[in-house]
Amino acid sequence: MSQFQINYLGCGSASPTLRHLPSCQVVDFRGNLFMVDCGECAQLSMRRQKLKYSRLGHIFISHLHGDHCLGLPGLVSTLALTGGRDGGSLTIHTFREGAEMFRRMFDFFCHMPPFEIIFDIIDPQTSSTIFENDAIAVRSFPLYHRLPCVGFAFEEKPKLRHLKGDTVKFFNVPISQYQAIKSGADFVTPDGQVIANDRLTTPADRSMSYAYCSDTLFNPKVAKSIEGIHTIYHEATYCDDQTEKARLRFHSTASQAARIAEMAGAEQLVLGHFSKSYHNEQRHLEEARAIFPNTVIANEGLVLPL
Amino acid sequence: MSQFQINYLGCGSASPTLRHLPSCQVVDFRGNLFMVDCGECAQLSMRRQKLKYSRLGHIFISHLHGDHCLGLPGLVSTLALTGGRDGGSLTIHTFREGAEMFRRMFDFFCHMPPFEIIFDIIDPQTSSTIFENDAIAVRSFPLYHRLPCVGFAFEEKPKLRHLKGDTVKFFNVPISQYQAIKSGADFVTPDGQVIANDRLTTPADRSMSYAYCSDTLFNPKVAKSIEGIHTIYHEATYCDDQTEKARLRFHSTASQAARIAEMAGAEQLVLGHFSKSYHNEQRHLEEARAIFPNTVIANEGLVLPL
Repeated sequence: MSQFQINYLGCGSASPTLRHLPSCQVVDFRGNLFMVDCGECAQLSMRRQKLKYSRLGHIFISHLHGDHCLGLPGLVSTLALTGGRDGGSLTIHTFREGAEMFRRMFDFFCHMPPFEIIFDIIDPQTSSTIFENDAIAVRSFPLYHRLPCVGFAFEEKPKLRHLKGDTVKFFNVPISQYQAIKSGADFVTPDGQVIANDRLTTPADRSMSYAYCSDTLFNPKVAKSIEGIHTIYHEATYCDDQTEKARLRFHSTASQAARIAEMAGAEQLVLGHFSKSYHNEQRHLEEARAIFPNTVIANEGLVLPL
Repeated sequence: MSQFQINYLGCGSASPTLRHLPSCQVVDFRGNLFMVDCGECAQLSMRRQKLKYSRLGHIFISHLHGDHCLGLPGLVSTLALTGGRDGGSLTIHTFREGAEMFRRMFDFFCHMPPFEIIFDIIDPQTSSTIFENDAIAVRSFPLYHRLPCVGFAFEEKPKLRHLKGDTVKFFNVPISQYQAIKSGADFVTPDGQVIANDRLTTPADRSMSYAYCSDTLFNPKVAKSIEGIHTIYHEATYCDDQTEKARLRFHSTASQAARIAEMAGAEQLVLGHFSKSYHNEQRHLEEARAIFPNTVIANEGLVLPL
């Protein structure tokens, strides 16, 4: 199993259909689950995709339309019933008015969860780090929808270089210095000889990154916010036949999503949030690939290792 | 299609499983849909079972546990988006505190539905008619759960007798009297001869009835409330192996449900609200049938014509 993979739980837009559930994804980073949006039926999809409730520590809500957050009270109720977080806490990252509403709903429907629920307030106007540990950082950045809306970038921190076992042994490097050398330091032998780091190590594995661009108008500022990200998820509610509708409803087309991925220098694009007016996503795929070839279509059950 | 049939959308208990969704049923009476409880994913199940949103005029909420009502904001959002009620209203029958909470959630998540949402307040302590038209009445009655909870009885009104065409013609009965005769009146000929009603008509079809007994402790008072009802749905969260757990959690076992059906003189029993601790409902069925033979197990997708 990859150390960093994305599970797609809901890829539809406002009205669920028989093909797509409302928005929900789970970023699985080294076994810790980060949910991004929580549309209705999210708890059921977690079961279906065998994602353990106990590993879910953070939920990030992009905006306060029902199709992006109405799975929250049910999920939190079930976490409360099942013991959920193994005594850990659950942090919900959302705007201030979302925190107030969700708190009210939890108080009403989710009696005494045996874990702490923390609300972390997101400022929708700025790009800022909202979660961070030794290995990964999550940043929110503004999107351009009918109401305040943000995307989320998951950026793995620089990894350690790999020691060359034989060379390290040859120079009798003490174990106490391994960490510094893996971080890039040279080694100085007892007699003062400097052994350059690249003789002792091979390069670190690449740090991966993923950006979630939820509901938004096409806007080059989005590309700027996620420049250099490896894999971009971008909503593609419509195709070129409904560009005007996309604009009026503050949504994007598949080809607009592809242009954002191209501008941001991404290596991979994932499309989702499909309007119920399409019976399949062949057209989304073709129109996006004409601009950005490495495009995939999300669907419920897709697991994408980065 | 039967004129009176029950669609089962969710037959699980508090934690949804891969086999069962949270509580939701739709009574289809002559094409008008009455939803009973509205667990998460109700709107999706309606689509799956091809139940038209536009025919849904009433939603009855038995109690305010999340697994019985958290599908409401999503369903109402979708009704608002799709135009839903064709200009008609949607009435939600619930307790006062439910109405306050749902109103708040709708105001937040469901922008400007193009139909009126009416809250009809149920008194959980009394048995009373909460909806009525020419053909059917719906009555709520107390159940015995951890918090206020009611069941619902759908009772078709007495139907009209059938005219015997030949006899009616023989006596030259004027059309203006048909309705009175179908309702049971005798006919008096112009020369004063009284023609008894049973010479002019055959008996009316039987009026059918259905009772929904949501979460409740075993209590003979429930049987009293639904005496004479044709088909009873009764929760059967547990089997005899967990009778004590049922009592502690204010739930019933399958055999307790069967005893209620027997005491009430029902003709048919439907079991639902199954605990996730059972991998199938064979045991529920056997234990109930030992007491009340005409028992069926509800499942998602079951359509039961009365």
